[in-house]
Amino acid sequence: MRVVLAAGTTETAMIEGISAAGASPELMTHTPAMDAEILIYGEPVSSDLVPVSPNGCPTPAVITRAVRERVGFDVTVIDAGLAADTDAPTVSVGATPGRDIREDRAVPSARATFDRARAFGRSLPDNELFVGETVPGGTTTAAALLRALGSDLGVSSSLPENPLALKERVVAAALDASDIASGEMADSPVAAIEAVGDPVQATVAGLTVGALESGTGVTLAGGTQLVATAALVRAFGVDESLSLATTSFVAADPAVDLAAAAATLSLDVTVTDPGFERSEHVAMARYVAGEAKEGVAMGGALALAEQGGVSTAAVRTQVETVYDRVALQSALTNEETGGER
Amino acid sequence: MRVVLAAGTTETAMIEGISAAGASPELMTHTPAMDAEILIYGEPVSSDLVPVSPNGCPTPAVITRAVRERVGFDVTVIDAGLAADTDAPTVSVGATPGRDIREDRAVPSARATFDRARAFGRSLPDNELFVGETVPGGTTTAAALLRALGSDLGVSSSLPENPLALKERVVAAALDASDIASGEMADSPVAAIEAVGDPVQATVAGLTVGALESGTGVTLAGGTQLVATAALVRAFGVDESLSLATTSFVAADPAVDLAAAAATLSLDVTVTDPGFERSEHVAMARYVAGEAKEGVAMGGALALAEQGGVSTAAVRTQVETVYDRVALQSALTNEETGGER
Repeated sequence: MRVVLAAGTTETAMIEGISAAGASPELMTHTPAMDAEILIYGEPVSSDLVPVSPNGCPTPAVITRAVRERVGFDVTVIDAGLAADTDAPTVSVGATPGRDIREDRAVPSARATFDRARAFGRSLPDNELFVGETVPGGTTTAAALLRALGSDLGVSSSLPENPLALKERVVAAALDASDIASGEMADSPVAAIEAVGDPVQATVAGLTVGALESGTGVTLAGGTQLVATAALVRAFGVDESLSLATTSFVAADPAVDLAAAAATLSLDVTVTDPGFERSEHVAMARYVAGEAKEGVAMGGALALAEQGGVSTAAVRTQVETVYDRVALQSALTNEETGGER
Repeated sequence: MRVVLAAGTTETAMIEGISAAGASPELMTHTPAMDAEILIYGEPVSSDLVPVSPNGCPTPAVITRAVRERVGFDVTVIDAGLAADTDAPTVSVGATPGRDIREDRAVPSARATFDRARAFGRSLPDNELFVGETVPGGTTTAAALLRALGSDLGVSSSLPENPLALKERVVAAALDASDIASGEMADSPVAAIEAVGDPVQATVAGLTVGALESGTGVTLAGGTQLVATAALVRAFGVDESLSLATTSFVAADPAVDLAAAAATLSLDVTVTDPGFERSEHVAMARYVAGEAKEGVAMGGALALAEQGGVSTAAVRTQVETVYDRVALQSALTNEETGGER
């Protein structure tokens, strides 16, 4: 079993009010790079930037790392269009940062990235992969992709108040800019990514198609962004069984209908509740308040903890340990450099 | 504890008769990339190439991977100048393939690579690192480096008959091309790499200096290439305690004086004997015949096995498993593609 994290960016995240995956739009550019470092090393390494929302909600990477420290799974990070340097080791599939989906072509390299990720997925020797993502703005690109594919499934948000009207306007502008009608790309999944998607979708879809083709089981570890990827995989004509493992926070989002996703995309859905309401630690309180919800394979990690017999109480204790380490590291580095965040 | 593998290349390996780290000079270009994949995934992934010597001796990556499957340590690969694509995740320190040391400047980017590796080593949160290398031709560049630094320590070889006279000629030509006398670079270690070294030396030395500066313990996991790196670290003025973990095959090489290395460089040396003479499997017989000897952190991995209470018999059994898997994968891929090796 291997957890693969596709880490990338889309300039769509820079649209005011779209994402909470970083304290500011500029810091958001670094979030996927820092997420990868937290997952691999247990804390940010190349900088003192800690991915937190404007309200102080820590990145889901903290939760996934915490589970990893209890369960011990292998992690491989794919550079799915990073826009900042990272000290995390990454696999290259030739992805570059995605453009704002309101531009003509959002992901010019979609086909090449999909093909390379597919070859990689096909050649991996593992019996089973858990595939997660980190891409600020990813639920908006997911909404645009689902629309282009003709699906009416809804998307979640890292914000407590899902900015659905704003997303709707951005999606409409995206389809308009690419001159495509809703559902027009139902049989052209890779072209749909190229037009209105992001490079993480190309990476995850390619990897998943390649893995399934070679007999490797795949669990998409995440929320509605991975539902959109599942729609891509199905649109590509792959009908092998496919699982989705997500969090109770996504399941509780009124904009999300996991049962409909499971039915229309033949997904075996697992929802795991980490019981964060039983903690008063800030790392978990923000999740209970509806922020973040999912990301960095968090739902998959929680499922792995449950499979591995690690209690939610043990997970919560470890989340505190990782959060405090990450926060301490940040404070120390700021003190050394005189920087401020 | 983390095992870090610096994987890179030098065109010095293309000199006829210098290295056995690949069945042909052309295949040798791929050896470090394949070593990284074997260590990370358990078999080559991006191609069907299996690093074997012309006599069929498998890469030490097979042994290090076998230990990893028993002991379970984390591995991070640094791209220290790879010349071929790899599907292994790699950390970038800006290294590029090294030139033939008989050219004017062997590693033009030595300073930048050293600095980036040093910053990386300084920021890693681990308490302890084991640092290994894979770079065909590396004992020849090590010999040139030691000469430039004014050390008279000898170097080992991946060949059963160490081509010492050939190496001597190449080293003399290298110093000549860079217009430096023996010992002239004793106080300019990074300039010595730039003149007659390889990018893996710049990476390992920078990483080690940075790690030691930040209080992280370092064990150099390898043979005389890492002795040369230790000389770099000492020439840089770092006097923290430093360990070397290598194999009994290196210790048995008459060209090598580990006691002298330990004394002159203040190295705490561990030698581990995996008892390969008790196996008749081809994977181990070639080592007993004096081939390969070390590489891909093999000596460090064997030390970790011993520390972890894994018997040499268990290591040997696992080596057979990994070897057979790697060989089978290669055979299957050849069958599929009709390729030949």
